[in-house]
Parts: sequence; C-alpha cells; structure tokens
Amino acid sequence: MKFSKKALSTLGIILAVAAFLVSADLANAAEKKVKWKLAMTWGTNLSPFTDGVANMAKMVETMSDGNFTIRIDSSNKHKSPFGVLDMVKLGQYDMGHSASYYWKGKDLALLPLTTMPFGMTAPEQYSWFYHGGGMALMQKAYAKHNVLSFPGGNTGAQMGGWFAKEINSLEDLKGLKMRIPGFAGEVLANLGLTVTNIAVGELYMALERGTIDALEWVGPGMDIKMGFHKIAPYYYTGWHEPATELQFLVNQKKFNTLSDKNKKILTVAMKLAAYDMYIQNYHMSSVAWSQIEKDFPNIKVRTFPKEVMDAMKAENKKLLAEKTQTNPMLKEILDSQQGYSKQAREWTKISDYSYLRDNI
Amino acid sequence: MKFSKKALSTLGIILAVAAFLVSADLANAAEKKVKWKLAMTWGTNLSPFTDGVANMAKMVETMSDGNFTIRIDSSNKHKSPFGVLDMVKLGQYDMGHSASYYWKGKDLALLPLTTMPFGMTAPEQYSWFYHGGGMALMQKAYAKHNVLSFPGGNTGAQMGGWFAKEINSLEDLKGLKMRIPGFAGEVLANLGLTVTNIAVGELYMALERGTIDALEWVGPGMDIKMGFHKIAPYYYTGWHEPATELQFLVNQKKFNTLSDKNKKILTVAMKLAAYDMYIQNYHMSSVAWSQIEKDFPNIKVRTFPKEVMDAMKAENKKLLAEKTQTNPMLKEILDSQQGYSKQAREWTKISDYSYLRDNI
Repeated sequence: MKFSKKALSTLGIILAVAAFLVSADLANAAEKKVKWKLAMTWGTNLSPFTDGVANMAKMVETMSDGNFTIRIDSSNKHKSPFGVLDMVKLGQYDMGHSASYYWKGKDLALLPLTTMPFGMTAPEQYSWFYHGGGMALMQKAYAKHNVLSFPGGNTGAQMGGWFAKEINSLEDLKGLKMRIPGFAGEVLANLGLTVTNIAVGELYMALERGTIDALEWVGPGMDIKMGFHKIAPYYYTGWHEPATELQFLVNQKKFNTLSDKNKKILTVAMKLAAYDMYIQNYHMSSVAWSQIEKDFPNIKVRTFPKEVMDAMKAENKKLLAEKTQTNPMLKEILDSQQGYSKQAREWTKISDYSYLRDNI
Repeated sequence: MKFSKKALSTLGIILAVAAFLVSADLANAAEKKVKWKLAMTWGTNLSPFTDGVANMAKMVETMSDGNFTIRIDSSNKHKSPFGVLDMVKLGQYDMGHSASYYWKGKDLALLPLTTMPFGMTAPEQYSWFYHGGGMALMQKAYAKHNVLSFPGGNTGAQMGGWFAKEINSLEDLKGLKMRIPGFAGEVLANLGLTVTNIAVGELYMALERGTIDALEWVGPGMDIKMGFHKIAPYYYTGWHEPATELQFLVNQKKFNTLSDKNKKILTVAMKLAAYDMYIQNYHMSSVAWSQIEKDFPNIKVRTFPKEVMDAMKAENKKLLAEKTQTNPMLKEILDSQQGYSKQAREWTKISDYSYLRDNI
C-alpha cells in the first residue's frame, strides 16, 4: 500500500497533535486512581476518634496527589457499628476503624490488642507493638479473619468511672449497678456488682435517675460532653484500661492490590494518625479536666482503696487463667504482653514515674 | 515562508515520534526529581537518632515513588556537628537533624524547644507542640534564621547521671566535678559543682580515672554502649531533661520550592519519624536497663534528696528569671510552656501517674 505525500503529511501532523494531548494526560494520570471506602464504628462526630480517621484519609489523599482517596462512612450511614470487622473481612468495605475488644464475643484472642486491666501504659504498649513483637502477633491473630490490623489511636489512661457514692471497701461495691463493658465488667461482676450495658444516648438519664449507680466512659476529654460530672461527684482513677488502642482494619486482598508506594502511604498515614490521636486525647483531657475542676469544684477524685484494687487484681488474674486454658492464641498474646510489660515497667519506674513523683 | 509538501510530511512524522518519546518519559517522570541533602549533628551510627533520620528519608523516598530522595551526611562527613543550623540557614544543606539546645550560645530563645529542667514529659510536650501553640512559637523563634523547625524524636526522660559516690546532701555536691552540658550545667555550677565539658570519646576514661566524679549522658538505651555502669555504681533519676526533643531543620526557601504533595510527604515523614524514635528509645532503654540490672546487680538507682532537688528547683527558677528579663522571645516560649504544663500535669497526675503509683 502506498500513501500520497499529502496524506503522509496530514497523518504526521494529526499523530503529533494526538501524541501531545495524550502525553499531557499521561503525566496527570500516570497511575490508576484508587478509591477506597472505610467504615467506622463511630457516629459522624466523635472527636477525637473521627478526627483521627479524617486526618489519616486526608494525608493519604494529599501524599498521593489525589490518586488514592478514602471515603469515610460513619455508623450513621452503614448502621452496623459492631459489624465493621465482618464488613471489612467480606470486602464490603476496604478498611475500617474500630477497637479490637469489640470482637471479644467473636474471637476472644483479639481482646488484649486494645488494652488490658492492669496492663501497659501508652508508651509501653506502643513499644510492645513496634519493638516487642506486638505487630506480628496482631497480624497472626487477625489472619483467620483475612484482615490486617494496625494501631488506630490511643485514649491514654482511661478513668475508672463516675460514681454516685464513695467506695471505701469491697463491701461498698456489692450490689452496685454499673455500666462497664468488656473484660473489666466481668471482673467487677465477679466482685458482686450488677454490670449492665445501656445505650450511649440513655446513659446520662440512667445515672441521673439512679437506674445505675456508676458508669465508666473514657476520660475528661470525652466525658465532659456527656455531662456525667453534673450528676456524679466521685471520679475514680483508672485500673481497667491504661492505654486503649483503637485499630485500623484493612482487607488483606485489597491491601495486596495496592502499589508499593500506596502501601507505604497508607501504613505511614495510619501510624501517624494513631500517635496523633493519642496526643490529641491527652490535650483534650487536660483542657476538659481543668474546665471541670473550675466549674465543679465539688468533684472529688478518688482511687479505689487497696482492698478493692487487690481484689480486682486477683479476680483479673483468675479470669485470665481460666480463659487462656482453652485459647492458645489468647495465651500467646497475653504472655508476650506480660513479659514485655514487666521489663518496660522497670524502666518506666525509674524514668517517668520517678520524675512525676518529684514534680506533682 | 512556504514549505514543500515533502518537508511538511517529514516534519509531521518527526514531531509524532518525538511526542511519543516525550510522553513515555513524562509518564515516568511526571514531576521534577527532587534530591535533597541532610546534615546530622551525629556520627554515622548513633542509634536511635540516626535510625530515626534514615527512617524519615526512606519514607519520603518510597511515598514519592523515588522522586524525592534525601542524602544523609553524618558529622563524620561534613565535620561540623554544631554547624548544622548555619549550614541549613545558608542553604548549604536543604535540611538538618540536631537539637535546639545546641544553639543556646547563638540564640538562647531556642533552648526550651528541646526540654527544660523540671519541664514537661513527652506526651505533655507533644500536646504542647501540636495543640498548645508550641509549633507556632517554634516557627516564630526560628524565622529569623530562615529555617523551619519540626520535632525530630524524643529520648524520653533522661537519667540524672552516673555518680561515683552517693549524694546525701547539698554539701556532697560542692566541688564535685561533673560533665553535664546546657542549662542544667549552669544550675549545678551555681550550686557549687565544677561543670566541665569533655569530648565524648574521652568520657569513660575521665570517669574511670577520677578526672570527673559524675557525668550525665542520656538513659540506659544509649548509656549502655558507653559502659559507664561498669565504673560508677550510682545511677540518679532525672530532673533536668524530662523529654528531650530533637529537631528537623528545613531551609525555608527550599521548603517553599516543594510541591504541595512533597511538602506533605516530608512533614508527615518527619512527624512520624519523631514519634517512632520516642518509642524506639523507650524500648531500647527498657531492654538495656534490664540487662544492666542483671549483669551489674550492684548498681544502685538513687533520687537526689529533697534538699538537693529543692535547691536545684530554686536555682533553675532564679536563672530563668534573669535570662527572660532581656529576652522577650525566650520569655514568650517559657510562659507558654509553663502555663500549658501546669494544666497538663493535673491530668497526668490523675491518669498515668496515679495508675503507675498503684502498679509499680
């Protein structure tokens, strides 16, 4: 086949123009756009939990030049706050944000990946995750659910709760009606409390009307919006959640489809958002506690008496011994945490604790 | 001017080929490659400081798909450990890694951006940086040097140092020869110590031969490699550096030349590397302390007696009052830190401190 010179000339110019147009486009969209969806256990605006998730998604978007975006669905939208693990497992969502101890009923081994009564403080626990074998154990425990799990933000030490009456003995606890979920609830139930679960929206009224005598929420930063300090004068220091770590869940197969660059962008953004949320919680709690102290000078901070604390420790130990007997994965995680914690606490004792003791 | 049809045809084909070649290249290198250099105050292998810097550079490289790389020069190469601020200011390096209190002689206002005697703990200080106005004050203080400054990793609470003899009174301090740099050195000099500075490589021998009676380094994680525990039996808890934050310095003009994407990649990588180094330090110190306790059971951990601690507090306060009188920027930073710290400490007291007191 032969072309006339005119035809060749025209074809050449058309090709040149087309090629330049394509090149401009290629430069912009060199890579495939990735659009993910994330399901949170939380409602639309539960600061700082939801701030942390938004912070993570924003980092991913900016660092990928808009090529990797994550749409965030609150539980107001997906209507399944405690279905997050299942939705991510099944690939209905690419990722989620929640807390491992919510899966206690489904898989008890996941419980200690959040926090444990008498467990590690936030820096001790982050050290365990990143240098003490915690991350590997977390992936091992989550492997059967086909998801990857990453630290998702820490509340810092949670308070022991708001009490209508002062607790001076183990006897004072008996028959007390308290809202306290999770493992700590089991410990207290064994000490004679009536442990109940009440929907979040009804907590204030339940405490005000005496349907419950006490409740545990988080710490001043998140408690202040709930208003409990207006109706319960005793604020107990914590024992049950010394460093509650939330979690990002990522569908394993979806994660594998990401480029190395996007894998790094996502993991870096999740890790930073987690630390940042810990610090935001610290800040919010100090501001809120200062406000509560000023506006409600009658609030009394108390620590459970030694008799009560010792009984809680003993009960906690007994319960763990029972549960680990038939659950090797739970045992492996708890053994690792307890071994690490024992060593790390010796350092905490001569560093932060010693410093604070002299400067409180 | 007119072209023959043949000439037009040839031109068209050349353009088309050129355009396709360019388009392929554009897709790969859609953006200009950015190659930066970073100068560290540290030598080649000072873990975890140098790990943190390498960690940061690696994140930047992977998240930018290799388009933004940072070459790290240790002080072995640039030969100017304490010239880092000047080199970044002058644009000889795009960025640096160091500690703000090394610029004390040049600009005293920068001192408290690292840590202060009787100052904040690590979570309190990170809260101040990111939520209490600290970042804005840091940029304000560094603006006249034409650099931006970012948190660069925390050592956690540093130990008060290794002492050949036990300190039981203020009298025991008088005439003691100690290596302790910075502001804490001035405090101790005013209490009658002879404060000296000795090159790092000669510290061990100086302590062993009694040229000095005591020295301060960091904490178990970094002290263990120096071997001080083999020759000084008293390890004092800290008061002078409760949360030493290192810093990344970035030349302001160079930072402005970065794309929004690269700005975000760099700032995210620096922020995460800083938190990560804090946690790595925590881990290293607990492992090292456990090792020292095991191998050297005669090491005695001591806290300075109240008389000594009170004198150090008073002297510290007096010195700060003097120095802030003629330095409004220093005063602004210290006022902000002290105001924030007071509030945050109330929260620390009822959370981490209270929890640790019951679980030590």
